[in-house]
Amino acid sequence: MQDQAEEARREAVLAALREALGAAVVSLPADFAGRRHADSSRMPCAEPIALLRPRTTEQVSKALSICHAHHQPVVTQGGLTGLAGGACMLGGEVALSLELMNAIEEIDPVSATMTVQAGTPLQTVQEAADAAGFMFPLDLGARGSATIGGNLGTNAGGNRVIRYGMMREQALDVEAVLADGSVVGGLRKMIKNNTGYDLRDLLIGSEGTLGVMTRAVLRLRPKPRAVSTAWCGLPDYDSVTTLLRLAQERLPAGVSAFEVMWPGYYDFVLSRLPELRAPLEGRHAFYVLLESSGADPQSQNDVFEAFLADMLEAGTLSDAALAANEAHAAAFWAIRDAPGEYGRFIPGRVSFDVSFSVAQVGLAAQRCEARLREHWPNATILIYGHLGDGNLHIVVHEPDWPASAAAEVKRVVYGVTGELGGSVSAEHGIGTKKLEVLALSRTPAELAAMRAVKAALDPRGILNPGKLFLESTPTMQLK
Amino acid sequence: MQDQAEEARREAVLAALREALGAAVVSLPADFAGRRHADSSRMPCAEPIALLRPRTTEQVSKALSICHAHHQPVVTQGGLTGLAGGACMLGGEVALSLELMNAIEEIDPVSATMTVQAGTPLQTVQEAADAAGFMFPLDLGARGSATIGGNLGTNAGGNRVIRYGMMREQALDVEAVLADGSVVGGLRKMIKNNTGYDLRDLLIGSEGTLGVMTRAVLRLRPKPRAVSTAWCGLPDYDSVTTLLRLAQERLPAGVSAFEVMWPGYYDFVLSRLPELRAPLEGRHAFYVLLESSGADPQSQNDVFEAFLADMLEAGTLSDAALAANEAHAAAFWAIRDAPGEYGRFIPGRVSFDVSFSVAQVGLAAQRCEARLREHWPNATILIYGHLGDGNLHIVVHEPDWPASAAAEVKRVVYGVTGELGGSVSAEHGIGTKKLEVLALSRTPAELAAMRAVKAALDPRGILNPGKLFLESTPTMQLK
Repeated sequence: MQDQAEEARREAVLAALREALGAAVVSLPADFAGRRHADSSRMPCAEPIALLRPRTTEQVSKALSICHAHHQPVVTQGGLTGLAGGACMLGGEVALSLELMNAIEEIDPVSATMTVQAGTPLQTVQEAADAAGFMFPLDLGARGSATIGGNLGTNAGGNRVIRYGMMREQALDVEAVLADGSVVGGLRKMIKNNTGYDLRDLLIGSEGTLGVMTRAVLRLRPKPRAVSTAWCGLPDYDSVTTLLRLAQERLPAGVSAFEVMWPGYYDFVLSRLPELRAPLEGRHAFYVLLESSGADPQSQNDVFEAFLADMLEAGTLSDAALAANEAHAAAFWAIRDAPGEYGRFIPGRVSFDVSFSVAQVGLAAQRCEARLREHWPNATILIYGHLGDGNLHIVVHEPDWPASAAAEVKRVVYGVTGELGGSVSAEHGIGTKKLEVLALSRTPAELAAMRAVKAALDPRGILNPGKLFLESTPTMQLK
Repeated sequence: MQDQAEEARREAVLAALREALGAAVVSLPADFAGRRHADSSRMPCAEPIALLRPRTTEQVSKALSICHAHHQPVVTQGGLTGLAGGACMLGGEVALSLELMNAIEEIDPVSATMTVQAGTPLQTVQEAADAAGFMFPLDLGARGSATIGGNLGTNAGGNRVIRYGMMREQALDVEAVLADGSVVGGLRKMIKNNTGYDLRDLLIGSEGTLGVMTRAVLRLRPKPRAVSTAWCGLPDYDSVTTLLRLAQERLPAGVSAFEVMWPGYYDFVLSRLPELRAPLEGRHAFYVLLESSGADPQSQNDVFEAFLADMLEAGTLSDAALAANEAHAAAFWAIRDAPGEYGRFIPGRVSFDVSFSVAQVGLAAQRCEARLREHWPNATILIYGHLGDGNLHIVVHEPDWPASAAAEVKRVVYGVTGELGGSVSAEHGIGTKKLEVLALSRTPAELAAMRAVKAALDPRGILNPGKLFLESTPTMQLK
């Protein structure tokens, strides 16, 4: 039960917000009944005490300075597609949605930049870049609803990291409102700017705990004029890393995707999704979707085909199918994109997004699978990932297992991740979902440094409290 | 005059350092007479009260925890090639040189990483990468003496930023000792790692004010197998940006260098350095050194040549010379690398390292030159830069001008930089040399956020005090 002082504090902050920003910006629970507040993490999520939908950076600044003055916790929300619970509310927070700050303010074709407001959906940015003759390379399944602000908040990754990097490498500058309402970042378009600490990269990936990003200058890339795609079968893991290295060395346009699938994944998705067709005959120890995207259609495909022939000759590849057209390539990608359909056929799954050095990905997968099999010999274990980035996705499922199994599965996979010095979150972030495993990837000194930075920039702890790390971060017991 | 308490404090800290680390690590002024302490900034630089040369991260940790306990300022030194005075001493500091931590600890060819100690010279890293079949792309004139630690501390740039990014993009992880002696960074080799704040990018470019970087995991790249180089003459600035954009779009291997030279620069260096030869006949409004480095020698040169022919046909290029061999390419680069010889023929120059959006580089150069000409109609004004990065170098010189002229020249160039929202330091950092102009590129709110981060991680202010920003950063008076 809330005490009277807390009730009075809440009333005061809501009154101050209404007074400063008006009812068009500040909605109370009665106004937003039925609205979804949870993200895509399947974590429990409370209702906010108010919903703010500012239209300008100045309004965000006013909102935060009021919340700061009243010690009022704030959760920033983008498209609610996060997978770690970072945008979920724990109770008592104000939700700050950037959904009405969704304009593309400028495209500068000479500087190859786009200045956008944080609530702009990723797909809108991709389409605007395309229309202007460029590419915005960040891409992920939730592109239609995920926003640039959310992509920035989580330092989003996706399918093209191997070539273009994560979200930090897509933004030249970000404008953000800090906890006290002060505004940093000047929408600068410089690629080189060594004038002090990298506040941009500090804010990107901070999951709403250090500031509210309101606008960004995004970097646009030349639009690829040719895409070469192959589906490869390989005899062993060493061949997989050899193929990666040689493709990076020899393909003129480099490697724009290198997606590895273990046979358990391949067999499972082909058996469950009848619309998928096997690109190769027979079974292989590993499958790789290899893509090279570049500027010169004439020469690129010839070199790509010759490279595959060399790799077959050398035995690095057991078999390979070259996509003859876009429809073929789409059919290959459909196999890799099957996880978008998991909701339909493995609802009770436990999923992981971990990373390792490229050299240790094979060992990590092998060790996870072997230990999981000790406990659950018949479980469905799906392993696949962005090998060029060392990023492994592991999905584990067994029908009718007890409620305690999920915790046990996590102990196994995160245990291996810790042993091999991997990361418990390659691209999804920590949110609330991975709080208990953060200490497997970060040392006490690093957590202390993060807490010091947090206390310096948000001394009252109003920004997304309880996310990313806690005053004393709990640690999963591995035994 | 120092008071007795200060004298006693110094004696105590030196005794504690000697006691903990031994005389082999801790040298006193009598031991290092004649040693150079200044960097390459031509700033005045004091002598340290002691010189520490640790061999391990543990020794760095011990040293900092003692200095922290005794409120003893510390200046970290790499190869002393910095151009902003970041490694200069103001008086009373301990110098911490990483010169004995210069081992390459591991090359992991599968993960394409190199783990090195911070004192390793850049050139040693480049050569080791090359010997292992890779490339380490960071490159700059001082490669023989500049160290990886210094490159990290200043977020070094150089000639290949357009293709590979600055130092932040070359390091997967850094190990650093914080002011209190705690060690952060785990020498992790993951490309994707979304587990909290980006301490790595916060430390990189912090110019020794947040921590002492001791080791790093560097990212290695595929070695280019073919380099295509051309020297281009262009009719106007629009043609320069058009050439950049189309080269990025159409060259299969992308653009690995795009160095622009204004005719004043070109004429001057050719007239002063008799070993240089003009690659083209006649004069042009702009000169561009265009380079594309890739994987496929066969197709790359053909496409490169065809691209140049198209550009000549379209009038984007007035003339172009294709390097037929490495000696030709080296002769082109010698024109661009002439600034390495400035010491010989323009000792009294005033130099700038500023950046703008790519779209505004032309305007910035024009405006700087016009305003400088108003004051000094006969001055030597050299303008050139890495256009793909928006980075402009401007050098101004007039024989026999008064001592006050340098300050006036700075007011003109930094004035234009501030007006156009550019950066007063594209790649050299702030150090002490650019303290007075930092506020032209950073807002008060940003400086306040930087100070808060500094106070959080170095509460006693022992790390490189007086560098990068001050408690109250002074601002150049532009009028």
